[in-house]
Amino acid sequence: MVAARKFHQIEGTFRMRNGHLESPVVAYETWGELNFQRDNGILLFTGLSPSAHAASSEDDPSNGWWEQMLGESKPIDTTKYFVICVNSLGSCFGSTGPSSINPETGERYGLHFPVLTIEDIARAGHDVVKSLGLTRLHAVVGASMGGMTCLAYSMLFPNVAEGLVSISGSPRASAFAISLRSLQREIIRSDPVWNHGSYAPDEEPITGMRLARKLGMLTYRSATELEQRFGRELIPDGRQTGEPFGIDFEVESYLEAHADKWIGTFDANSYLYLSRAMDLFDVADHGGSVEAGLRRIGAKRALVIGVDTDLLFPIDHQKRIADGLEDGQREVKFHALPSIQGHDAFLVDMDRFRPILCDFFNCSMNQPGKLRKVD
Amino acid sequence: MVAARKFHQIEGTFRMRNGHLESPVVAYETWGELNFQRDNGILLFTGLSPSAHAASSEDDPSNGWWEQMLGESKPIDTTKYFVICVNSLGSCFGSTGPSSINPETGERYGLHFPVLTIEDIARAGHDVVKSLGLTRLHAVVGASMGGMTCLAYSMLFPNVAEGLVSISGSPRASAFAISLRSLQREIIRSDPVWNHGSYAPDEEPITGMRLARKLGMLTYRSATELEQRFGRELIPDGRQTGEPFGIDFEVESYLEAHADKWIGTFDANSYLYLSRAMDLFDVADHGGSVEAGLRRIGAKRALVIGVDTDLLFPIDHQKRIADGLEDGQREVKFHALPSIQGHDAFLVDMDRFRPILCDFFNCSMNQPGKLRKVD
Repeated sequence: MVAARKFHQIEGTFRMRNGHLESPVVAYETWGELNFQRDNGILLFTGLSPSAHAASSEDDPSNGWWEQMLGESKPIDTTKYFVICVNSLGSCFGSTGPSSINPETGERYGLHFPVLTIEDIARAGHDVVKSLGLTRLHAVVGASMGGMTCLAYSMLFPNVAEGLVSISGSPRASAFAISLRSLQREIIRSDPVWNHGSYAPDEEPITGMRLARKLGMLTYRSATELEQRFGRELIPDGRQTGEPFGIDFEVESYLEAHADKWIGTFDANSYLYLSRAMDLFDVADHGGSVEAGLRRIGAKRALVIGVDTDLLFPIDHQKRIADGLEDGQREVKFHALPSIQGHDAFLVDMDRFRPILCDFFNCSMNQPGKLRKVD
Repeated sequence: MVAARKFHQIEGTFRMRNGHLESPVVAYETWGELNFQRDNGILLFTGLSPSAHAASSEDDPSNGWWEQMLGESKPIDTTKYFVICVNSLGSCFGSTGPSSINPETGERYGLHFPVLTIEDIARAGHDVVKSLGLTRLHAVVGASMGGMTCLAYSMLFPNVAEGLVSISGSPRASAFAISLRSLQREIIRSDPVWNHGSYAPDEEPITGMRLARKLGMLTYRSATELEQRFGRELIPDGRQTGEPFGIDFEVESYLEAHADKWIGTFDANSYLYLSRAMDLFDVADHGGSVEAGLRRIGAKRALVIGVDTDLLFPIDHQKRIADGLEDGQREVKFHALPSIQGHDAFLVDMDRFRPILCDFFNCSMNQPGKLRKVD
């Protein structure tokens, strides 16, 4: 397998809220070809934990995190668009983050990494866009933290993206979302292995990360979905460990399996920085109010999608984004989806999300006589 | 201050699911006087964390956990009723629990305490009732875990209580509630100080307890309330600790203050046992289905109250209890309250709860010309 990942090094000093990075790197992947007019680019920002590998490609045929949405004859059709997905600055999949070596000291940044903002992630993404020779984009797209990032991008660079797709995002986090993320961070910081951020590269605070992930899972899905899938089903005797206060119920086993799969894949300090960036983000910082911030956005078309069971990025936040983007000239479509899959619906409830994105990106699936063949 | 707490020692062996306790003790408090007919008794079960000190008394004038509900001229009027509140078996405020000395070994039970069930708590409470010379009760009352306990009590002793008051209870926990409590337990067990349950009496796993409490707080209140009270308000510079990933927002500070107040007041192993007892409780164990279990209850009058923002004991659980109690003969009142204070509303949203309990207990506050004087 040849890695599809490419790297862009930002030239010079990248200034941040309380510090700087010297020539940081942004990892990204691309799909499709830039057209002659250079106007078919789509920039995709991710949620907190994914890498830039949004979909499979010739160079990396493994499934990406949005495999069903992105590719040939898919809603975001890569035979038509040139799609760029960036690994967020501060993350740990090739972009410069707290686990990277600081070229100025020769040591890992750790907690010397400056305070990270969503705007920093947007600016770093834009540097990739420019490096690829694009001065405008067909659209900027993001879900969850990526939804915040595409708002930041559209305020910082109001005339670059013609379209804006905000999925399960937020103009600014609620007190409840802040509390949950703050608790996840405290759980990680309370793991003695975390060691004030100075853990060894091969010794991650996996206990803290496991617990934080489980708390995350409980906020990414809905109570209704858990009830329908697991209810009060007990695990069979054969899978009992005999450990006191171990696992009794299938729903506990489900969370355990998800946490097992995740730990060791994500740098704990990256998690802390990205999580806090979401709390700090506020569209109102761009003009004094959420509405003033949204008015700065120059996109001609906007698509806002939310899910009514989302605890973290609740549906009224999506409504506020959509309302704020309505200016009488822009085409704004707002979808409040009745999915039971909560915040994560954009990753799993494809039957609801696919046709909406297909419509926005005018994909061939929706055109009569051009339905994708199932071979 | 003279302690109002009394102790009842259960005679002989108290059998439990996978073991027994030898002559366990149940701590309790009482208010008011038993009348000549011995029919004015009210038994009150608590949520997970309170002691038997539900209200102040001459012996202990400190405020109790339901101070506004219980006392002279209050909704549960102690000039009229003889109220008994028990500290749950397995808790740590005088009743035998994991932190008690096992008389058979001379050592603390720790994790040798048998698996605790809600039914055990109900049976231990009934032993107190009998010891006080009562064979019937005017009512059994409970909220949260106490709501489950009063259902268990009413199924185990169907003809003792004439009235049943279930507040924010559940016939059996949802997958979501199980998941949250399971995670709280895992957080506590992950604290190295917990030491597989064998921590020293003076060295509690306070880090784990702090984090579990914060997670609890986030499920006891509603997102709406946190938003209204705190929003995105930042703490002033003067209160900043400078610690990386410390506290930025007032809502974080609120959770911190609550956790500070709580840690050190509750035994970690007691928490684990009581928390798991809630997960294991299932009305369907009494007859094959929730409905069959509820049909066993002999109470003539029932009051079921729930709150529509409750994440842990959701309103449809309350509805199911009320529906299951409807048998055409019993008087059943059901209230779905639109409080924004979530699961904890029964402790704080007194304006909504007081008149309902007052009505059920025919208190003088509701009688014209007998309004309580404010001196």
